[in-house]
Amino acid sequence: MSFVAVPDGSDFPIENLPYGVFSTAGNPTARIGVAIGEKILDLSAVASFYPESVRNALQATVLNDLMSLGCDAWAEVRRTTKELLLEGSALHKDAALQARALVPQSDAKMHLPANIKDYTDFYSSIHHATNVGVMFRGKENALMPNWKHLPVGYHGRASSVVVSGTPIRRPYGQTLPVDGADPAFGPCRLFDFELEMAFFVGGPPTELGERVTVRDAAKRVFGFVLMNDWSARDIQKWEYVPLGPFTAKNLGTSISPWIVPVAALEPFLVDNFPQDPSPFP
Amino acid sequence: MSFVAVPDGSDFPIENLPYGVFSTAGNPTARIGVAIGEKILDLSAVASFYPESVRNALQATVLNDLMSLGCDAWAEVRRTTKELLLEGSALHKDAALQARALVPQSDAKMHLPANIKDYTDFYSSIHHATNVGVMFRGKENALMPNWKHLPVGYHGRASSVVVSGTPIRRPYGQTLPVDGADPAFGPCRLFDFELEMAFFVGGPPTELGERVTVRDAAKRVFGFVLMNDWSARDIQKWEYVPLGPFTAKNLGTSISPWIVPVAALEPFLVDNFPQDPSPFP
Repeated sequence: MSFVAVPDGSDFPIENLPYGVFSTAGNPTARIGVAIGEKILDLSAVASFYPESVRNALQATVLNDLMSLGCDAWAEVRRTTKELLLEGSALHKDAALQARALVPQSDAKMHLPANIKDYTDFYSSIHHATNVGVMFRGKENALMPNWKHLPVGYHGRASSVVVSGTPIRRPYGQTLPVDGADPAFGPCRLFDFELEMAFFVGGPPTELGERVTVRDAAKRVFGFVLMNDWSARDIQKWEYVPLGPFTAKNLGTSISPWIVPVAALEPFLVDNFPQDPSPFP
Repeated sequence: MSFVAVPDGSDFPIENLPYGVFSTAGNPTARIGVAIGEKILDLSAVASFYPESVRNALQATVLNDLMSLGCDAWAEVRRTTKELLLEGSALHKDAALQARALVPQSDAKMHLPANIKDYTDFYSSIHHATNVGVMFRGKENALMPNWKHLPVGYHGRASSVVVSGTPIRRPYGQTLPVDGADPAFGPCRLFDFELEMAFFVGGPPTELGERVTVRDAAKRVFGFVLMNDWSARDIQKWEYVPLGPFTAKNLGTSISPWIVPVAALEPFLVDNFPQDPSPFP
C-alpha cells in the first residue's frame, strides 16, 4: 500500500503509475512525473534512487530518452517507483524530500509527454472501419478487401498532436455539399470527434530498412493514451480519394497527458477474437 | 564575378548559392555551407560578417533556425554571401580565412539539411496524377473529381527522409498478385523511383489553427531540392484504399543535399498554364 493517499475511485492507484510531463508555477521547467492519487511524483527530484543507466533519461524534459531505453529499463523504473511509494520507503521517511518530490496534480500544468516525430493512425476496429465505410462509400463497399489482411493506416500530422485541453479551432476547407456541383470553401460543418487508443513505440532505435518482427512488436510498446482524432468529415469526404485523409485531420489531435504503461494493463489481458485470416508469421 | 573558380557547366555558379549541411574528416561537426564552384563556403567560419540577427542561425547544425527567420532574413543572408564571394571582398583578401572557410566539396560529407518534423507529398502534375490513376483504377476513373480543385496530398513518413546516396532497402510487405486470391507476404517486386520537386517551408512559426493565406504562401518557401519518392507499387496497390499510401512509401525518401533558394530560381519564372477552375481566393 502506498503512503500517498489514494481516494476511492481514483484513476491513479499504485497499480497504475502512468508517466507524464508537467511543470508548476514555482518551477516552469518541464519534467517527468508519475501520477499517484492526487499527487505527481517528480522523477527528476528522486532520480538518485534509480539505477544510473536510467537517471539521465528521468531528468529529461520529455519521455523520448526513457522510451528509447527499452522494456527492461521500463520494468526497472517501474519497480523502483513502486518501492519508493510504498509505506516505509526512503521517500516515506524523508519529509523534506516528499515536500520537493510530491506535487499536487492541481498545481501542475501538463505538457505533451514526448517529441512526436511520426504519428500513424490505424483502422483497428472492424465496426469502426465498416461504419466509416458506409458513410463514405455506401453499404456495398463498406469494408475494403484489404482490411482483414493488414493494418490499414495513414500518417497523421505529427506536429499538430497536442495535450488534452488545448483549444482546437474548427478548420476552413473545401467541401462538396452537392455531388456534381462546384466545391465550396468555408468553415467545416461536420466537425467530428473520434475516440481512439494511441500507443507510444520505443526501444532501441532501428536502422533505416531494419525490420521489427510481429513476435517482437509487443516489447516495443511503451504505453497507452486516449486520443481524440478530431475530424472534419465534410472536408474528408471531398479530399480523401485516392490519397487518404489529410487537411480533414491536420487541425489537431488531442492525447491525454498520462501514458499508462503496458505493465499496468497486463492484469486485464483477455483473449482476443480468433484472427481470421490468421496473420503472416 | 566570384574569386572562387567556377568550372564551365558547374551546377554551382554565383547565381545559385544553395544551402547544405556538411562535415569533414577534420571537423566532424555538421555545419551550414553554401556551394560555390567545387567548394563549400562554411558559413559558421564567416558568420561574423553577417548581421547579428542571423549569426546564431548560421552556426547551427541544421537549417531549421535560418528557415524560421523568414524571407527578409533569407534575402539578407544571400546578399552577404554573394558579397563575400565577389572579387575584392574581405574574404578574397584574407588567405588564412579562405583556408578555413572554403572546403573542397570532395572532402565533405553531406547530411540531411534540416530536422524534418512533417513531410507532405502532393500530386501537382495532371499528367502524373492521370498516369498513376490509370495504373490503379483504369482509364475511366484515372483523374478523381477533386484533383482540379484542391492540392490532393498525404503525409509521408518524415523520419525516413534521407540525404541522396543513403542506401535504400527493398521492403517486405503484403501484395495481392492475383485479384481475388489470398494476399502474399514477401519482398516488393515492383520497386519504383519517382522524381519529384520538394520544397522546405519556413518563416515565423504559426500557432495551431492559424491560417496562412494563398497570397502569403510563396513568402514561406525557403528553397527546393530534388526528391526520389521510392515507391513499392505492388504493396501500394493492395494497401492504399481507402487511407492512402503507407508502407509502400515508408521505406525511405531521398532528397538532394543542396537546397536551391527561391531567389536563385526567380530569373527563370515563366507564366503557368491558366488555372481551371480558378483557385479560391
